[in-house]
Amino acid sequence: MFANNYPPPGTPPATLTPRGDRQPTIRWLQYDGTTLDEREVSDIADVFEGRGNGKVHWIDIDGLADVELLRKLGEHFGLHPLAMEDVIHVPQRPKVEEFEGYFFIVVQIPSWDEKAGSVSFEQASLFLGTDFLITLQENPLTDVFEPVRARLRSGRGYGRTRGHDYLAYALLDSMVDHFFPVLESLGEDIESLEDELLDRPTRESLVRLHALKRTLMMVRRNIWPVRELFTSLIRDETGLITHETTLFLRDCYDHAIRLMDVIENYRDLTASMMDIYLSSVGMRTNEVMRVLTVVSTIFIPLTFIVGVYGMNFETMPGTKSPEGFWICMGGMLVLALGMLALFRRNKWI
Amino acid sequence: MFANNYPPPGTPPATLTPRGDRQPTIRWLQYDGTTLDEREVSDIADVFEGRGNGKVHWIDIDGLADVELLRKLGEHFGLHPLAMEDVIHVPQRPKVEEFEGYFFIVVQIPSWDEKAGSVSFEQASLFLGTDFLITLQENPLTDVFEPVRARLRSGRGYGRTRGHDYLAYALLDSMVDHFFPVLESLGEDIESLEDELLDRPTRESLVRLHALKRTLMMVRRNIWPVRELFTSLIRDETGLITHETTLFLRDCYDHAIRLMDVIENYRDLTASMMDIYLSSVGMRTNEVMRVLTVVSTIFIPLTFIVGVYGMNFETMPGTKSPEGFWICMGGMLVLALGMLALFRRNKWI
Amino acid sequence: MFANNYPPPGTPPATLTPRGDRQPTIRWLQYDGTTLDEREVSDIADVFEGRGNGKVHWIDIDGLADVELLRKLGEHFGLHPLAMEDVIHVPQRPKVEEFEGYFFIVVQIPSWDEKAGSVSFEQASLFLGTDFLITLQENPLTDVFEPVRARLRSGRGYGRTRGHDYLAYALLDSMVDHFFPVLESLGEDIESLEDELLDRPTRESLVRLHALKRTLMMVRRNIWPVRELFTSLIRDETGLITHETTLFLRDCYDHAIRLMDVIENYRDLTASMMDIYLSSVGMRTNEVMRVLTVVSTIFIPLTFIVGVYGMNFETMPGTKSPEGFWICMGGMLVLALGMLALFRRNKWI
Amino acid sequence: MFANNYPPPGTPPATLTPRGDRQPTIRWLQYDGTTLDEREVSDIADVFEGRGNGKVHWIDIDGLADVELLRKLGEHFGLHPLAMEDVIHVPQRPKVEEFEGYFFIVVQIPSWDEKAGSVSFEQASLFLGTDFLITLQENPLTDVFEPVRARLRSGRGYGRTRGHDYLAYALLDSMVDHFFPVLESLGEDIESLEDELLDRPTRESLVRLHALKRTLMMVRRNIWPVRELFTSLIRDETGLITHETTLFLRDCYDHAIRLMDVIENYRDLTASMMDIYLSSVGMRTNEVMRVLTVVSTIFIPLTFIVGVYGMNFETMPGTKSPEGFWICMGGMLVLALGMLALFRRNKWI
Amino acid sequence: MFANNYPPPGTPPATLTPRGDRQPTIRWLQYDGTTLDEREVSDIADVFEGRGNGKVHWIDIDGLADVELLRKLGEHFGLHPLAMEDVIHVPQRPKVEEFEGYFFIVVQIPSWDEKAGSVSFEQASLFLGTDFLITLQENPLTDVFEPVRARLRSGRGYGRTRGHDYLAYALLDSMVDHFFPVLESLGEDIESLEDELLDRPTRESLVRLHALKRTLMMVRRNIWPVRELFTSLIRDETGLITHETTLFLRDCYDHAIRLMDVIENYRDLTASMMDIYLSSVGMRTNEVMRVLTVVSTIFIPLTFIVGVYGMNFETMPGTKSPEGFWICMGGMLVLALGMLALFRRNKWI
Repeated sequence: MFANNYPPPGTPPATLTPRGDRQPTIRWLQYDGTTLDEREVSDIADVFEGRGNGKVHWIDIDGLADVELLRKLGEHFGLHPLAMEDVIHVPQRPKVEEFEGYFFIVVQIPSWDEKAGSVSFEQASLFLGTDFLITLQENPLTDVFEPVRARLRSGRGYGRTRGHDYLAYALLDSMVDHFFPVLESLGEDIESLEDELLDRPTRESLVRLHALKRTLMMVRRNIWPVRELFTSLIRDETGLITHETTLFLRDCYDHAIRLMDVIENYRDLTASMMDIYLSSVGMRTNEVMRVLTVVSTIFIPLTFIVGVYGMNFETMPGTKSPEGFWICMGGMLVLALGMLALFRRNKWI
Repeated sequence: MFANNYPPPGTPPATLTPRGDRQPTIRWLQYDGTTLDEREVSDIADVFEGRGNGKVHWIDIDGLADVELLRKLGEHFGLHPLAMEDVIHVPQRPKVEEFEGYFFIVVQIPSWDEKAGSVSFEQASLFLGTDFLITLQENPLTDVFEPVRARLRSGRGYGRTRGHDYLAYALLDSMVDHFFPVLESLGEDIESLEDELLDRPTRESLVRLHALKRTLMMVRRNIWPVRELFTSLIRDETGLITHETTLFLRDCYDHAIRLMDVIENYRDLTASMMDIYLSSVGMRTNEVMRVLTVVSTIFIPLTFIVGVYGMNFETMPGTKSPEGFWICMGGMLVLALGMLALFRRNKWI
Repeated sequence: MFANNYPPPGTPPATLTPRGDRQPTIRWLQYDGTTLDEREVSDIADVFEGRGNGKVHWIDIDGLADVELLRKLGEHFGLHPLAMEDVIHVPQRPKVEEFEGYFFIVVQIPSWDEKAGSVSFEQASLFLGTDFLITLQENPLTDVFEPVRARLRSGRGYGRTRGHDYLAYALLDSMVDHFFPVLESLGEDIESLEDELLDRPTRESLVRLHALKRTLMMVRRNIWPVRELFTSLIRDETGLITHETTLFLRDCYDHAIRLMDVIENYRDLTASMMDIYLSSVGMRTNEVMRVLTVVSTIFIPLTFIVGVYGMNFETMPGTKSPEGFWICMGGMLVLALGMLALFRRNKWI
Repeated sequence: MFANNYPPPGTPPATLTPRGDRQPTIRWLQYDGTTLDEREVSDIADVFEGRGNGKVHWIDIDGLADVELLRKLGEHFGLHPLAMEDVIHVPQRPKVEEFEGYFFIVVQIPSWDEKAGSVSFEQASLFLGTDFLITLQENPLTDVFEPVRARLRSGRGYGRTRGHDYLAYALLDSMVDHFFPVLESLGEDIESLEDELLDRPTRESLVRLHALKRTLMMVRRNIWPVRELFTSLIRDETGLITHETTLFLRDCYDHAIRLMDVIENYRDLTASMMDIYLSSVGMRTNEVMRVLTVVSTIFIPLTFIVGVYGMNFETMPGTKSPEGFWICMGGMLVLALGMLALFRRNKWI
Repeated sequence: MFANNYPPPGTPPATLTPRGDRQPTIRWLQYDGTTLDEREVSDIADVFEGRGNGKVHWIDIDGLADVELLRKLGEHFGLHPLAMEDVIHVPQRPKVEEFEGYFFIVVQIPSWDEKAGSVSFEQASLFLGTDFLITLQENPLTDVFEPVRARLRSGRGYGRTRGHDYLAYALLDSMVDHFFPVLESLGEDIESLEDELLDRPTRESLVRLHALKRTLMMVRRNIWPVRELFTSLIRDETGLITHETTLFLRDCYDHAIRLMDVIENYRDLTASMMDIYLSSVGMRTNEVMRVLTVVSTIFIPLTFIVGVYGMNFETMPGTKSPEGFWICMGGMLVLALGMLALFRRNKWI
């Protein structure tokens, strides 16, 4: 629930502690409308090359284990130590912060774990300056930005002819797009659980429902701030974001609102599902009681009658007659059938 | 719950994918106070004719399967590719977006499916410019704007002498008007379910109640943003909307508020109905228990008494007397009647 | 719940359809500090007389069946067709709308139906211009404004020496005042239902509680917008409302806030009452169970004992002795009394 | 719940109706840094004396039965009739209203009734002008402002050297201070009820809990508006309140916020306590059921066995042997002990 | 719940009453980029030394028992008596107040009591002026600011080269950092309680859950205002806080938001846990009922059959035959097995 990845009280601010132990992958990409140059470099100093030549300059770093590398990067581009700290101290809330000359953007990219039926998040950090875009991701093994990179290579779409702000938009857009399949999977989970709860609820349904609520909380916590993030970017007054890109960001904002709508509906549904569970527990007690009551109510009077004929009075009507037993049995049968008919009329059986 | 009509992560923004496969119907309509010209055209180029001649120029396209047609339309009128994408990627949230020189408006028109007892929505998109109004609908088979068209033909009302903004208003007004019968049907559903819950609740009532809640969620999701939509249009500063039309939009806004009031009341009622269901489940357990208790409490002491007289002591009072049996039976009858009287006094039977 | 008084989709805006069939009553009243002239007229044209002579000019129309009359009225005073439509299409939400040269105000006046224990509303519409005040009411049989008229005739209070805005205030004030006795009656209803729920809840209590919730919803829907209504009038920038009258409107606003407070408390109370009902249902099951358990737990062991002595073993202790029976009975009595004592200690009986 | 102290519909605004029948006490107090003059006067005209001589001039009236007195007071100081009406028509919501040349402030002073365990309120009204402070209280028997008066007499604290605004602050501060012991008593009530609910909940606990909720509602209704009251005074632009006094008012505001925090926590606690009650009702049913089930499950099989040996077959194993009875009894004892062990393992007994 | 540490009604404002009885510890610390001077002084007059020499001047007082000391301190630095009162009257809400020439900041520093599983708070008050920073803590035995002091001594980090505002930030940051381990402990508590509720809920679980809710309330009450506190400092217009420090405060603000997110999720979880408890109570009743029903339903018919053969009719089938008993027993065994099979099919056993 609460990732215990926080600095112990007393740690100086802006302390960088390595995260994970895999060597980061560094991708360097420069392009304009006509040319595109892409390299995987091993020395961080290589990525400073070509800065300010008018081309779009994208540095993508996967993996946060090499603190020295991050320090050098921060120094060259003038990135604030507090921002660098937030890059490493994952998870941060999705947010945008304005610094002198650049934006610092944090987002959480969800992925759905089919087997566990749960959601995990990977943090991506963006630094958007006038002549650079730096992205940093937690996990060196996955590369959530590959589709955008492929699109740039192919030259399709608008991407190649626009600036750093449009590239940042494209990455944020792909981040928001990752939420849709996750919400779809959650929706399927909710529907299957709904059917289970209405049909045959068990203790396991309750455990699943509670787990679902927790997952929704986590997803919600990572979607809500996204709205504010886009609002801040759209209202940008620094000039880092062009008017044309603003239109695209507005589209993203719209998607984020739609995601929030869906999440809120999911929350309402799970609340309603808890009520269904509660009522179905009462319903089952009811059914059990009904069986007990039907059986008891039929046999208790009959047992009383046979008890009467078990009494040791010397004079009892019918005990001497040979048909007495059968008349008594017949009478009890009639009584039992009458009670069954009564129960059937009351819809108890 | 969650229409899985979203582009897969990695899709470039503003990608147009055809929706459905029916050939769209294109209606072209031009009018001013005195003349009205209406055509159904097959080539999209025909609808560009007469643009800017001072008449109201309405292009209505039913069906979103022909992507090429939409692209040509967008190019001629300078419509933003992101807006064109939202036209096709239904369902979008109701919204209004301001672009250079025109408004882009999305609304969801509800219709009540009598048999299923549920609501479905069809998206309508409007582009309102200075010299054109373009409307696009999902379904080529239904035409929700026909009443407005008929009114224009007949020349009744204010419509003919006013501009594009008034026409847009008339269409939005007809959209809002479609919600009223839907809410009425929902209200009838709620009332019948209320009666059922108070009278004779069953497991099916719970299923119906849950389905009703989901329907309300969906309707609510499509009404709430409408309020903001009208607020934006009323506060318009682009000059596309005249002051006189603003008064009419305010009327629509008022209707939307009224719809929201009703929806919120419906939500409160369904929440209260869940409580009624929960209490009625407890109530029924209660009744079943009462029957069991009454039957048991009467017969268990009687069975004890007959058991006593079934004991094999050689000396028991009364067993030898001929009237013993009848005295015993009479005593038990008196006991049973006494208990029945007691139960009746406690209102248990 | 949802008054189905809405125009069918496709109706042109501002269509006037008659409401009810009773001939309206038209009252014409003019006064200043010294003179007061009051007439009941039958031709609508008569009420236009004397307009603009510096006196307060109040036209009061009871009954909305004569559409022609309303059209003439609207034309003479330049009232917007949309406002006229709202006058007839009752119920509207309470609201104030600013038009060129006048305010259009809608309020709902409650009345308590003692027999049904429910609230009904009658819509009153006000047009407040520089030289006229027009009021329109639904029902020609009741006249909610009579007390104000009587006060004007008598010359008591401030009314006679002030303008149209003060008269409008006096009418709105009398409208707000009508809510107080209604809330008092609702409060009495809540208290009696509370006592019932705490003492002896039945299924009927639940029905009453649900009905009460619905009534509260309706009253709330008609009080909440009143607050905004007064805020708009107090912040008036058109000059139609003098500063002095603003002080009086602020007093009304204060009353409206107080009404809202009371309604919100009523809502909280009914929510709490539903919890009481739910717990009392569980409580009663509890009591029934306790009776069953006490009776069963006492008699089941006794029945076992008598069963033992009913066994057909040839050698059983005590069966041959003459006191055996009485010893056995005495033992069982002791056992039964012991169990009763145990139950009493556990507070079960 | 709802004090039915409202004017009947149709009453003219600003009507003064006497409240209570005790003769009011009038206290007249004038002071500056060096002198202090205090009198109890019987004629209202006496209190006008010395107005505007640069000293602080405080008139305190306890009791609202003498309408004529209030009218004269209002006329002399130019107090608005609507404000005078609010003084008498208790209870009003706590509020501050700005009039030409003075503030009108209404507060509710709580007191805890130890015996009934409930809270009652007394309204105090303040008129703060440039050269007067008038306070009016409902009840001539209590004097909530006595501590402030004593402080002034003693000359301790800041009071004597400051103006009317500081005196008003001191009175408001003493009003806010009265809430603390009330909240403490409520807190103790909540804690004792919590213990009761967790230990041994009864029907009376529910009645107490519901009463507590109502009391909290009432207290809350009288604290919430106090926040706004202080905000208005702090933001004063009329110059009636000096900057230095603003700092003191901010302190009061802070106390009011703290009171609101506590009240909200109390509300959350009582909501949680209702859940505890509901669960404990279910818990008790559970316990009763467990006793029944244990007793039944042990004795029903035993009763079956003794029934078997009570059958009248001529040939049954063991009936003829002398030890048969004891073997049978021993077997049943073993069976009973085994079942008891089973129940103990399941934690049922 | 409600610390009854409030002045009795009637106390003059700004009264200082000693808190606790331990002699306070006074620490005096002055530093700039190159030098650092640290002393523990016993006479309060010593701490005034060196004020205004351009170095950072930090006075830290642990313990609030010596009122005279505080008065002298307040007089020398011109601290407002109301602020000094808030220092002593713990607990106050976290807040920042702007006074002439300095900020007064109150925060609550949490600590987790491992044994009791609860949270306690210690109030720290800060006065941030242009040439001083004064901190006051309740408890002379603990020193929550020691890590910051150690960092200053070591010269690590940014601290030494910056001004009073940065030092205040560092202290506030360490305060916020103290919440993280507390929330982690609470999170572990919630998880263990969740497991308990889903596995084997008892009455003690309910007591723990309720205590947890209360703890969350208290923590929440001390986190929420922190957000506003940082917003006020960030928006500072007095110049006491430099732009560079604002960036650091924004980082703190971000942490506070994250804490609030976690607390809100915890609240949602505990609400959901109460539902789980309620349903599990119903579930257990269900299980108990099922055992009773299974036992009763099997044995009641069998007991009826043996009763039949216990009747004293002279002619009953089979009683005379030697195998009669065994045939009867076999029949009952078949019946019992059949019922067991039926129950197993219904998943009851």
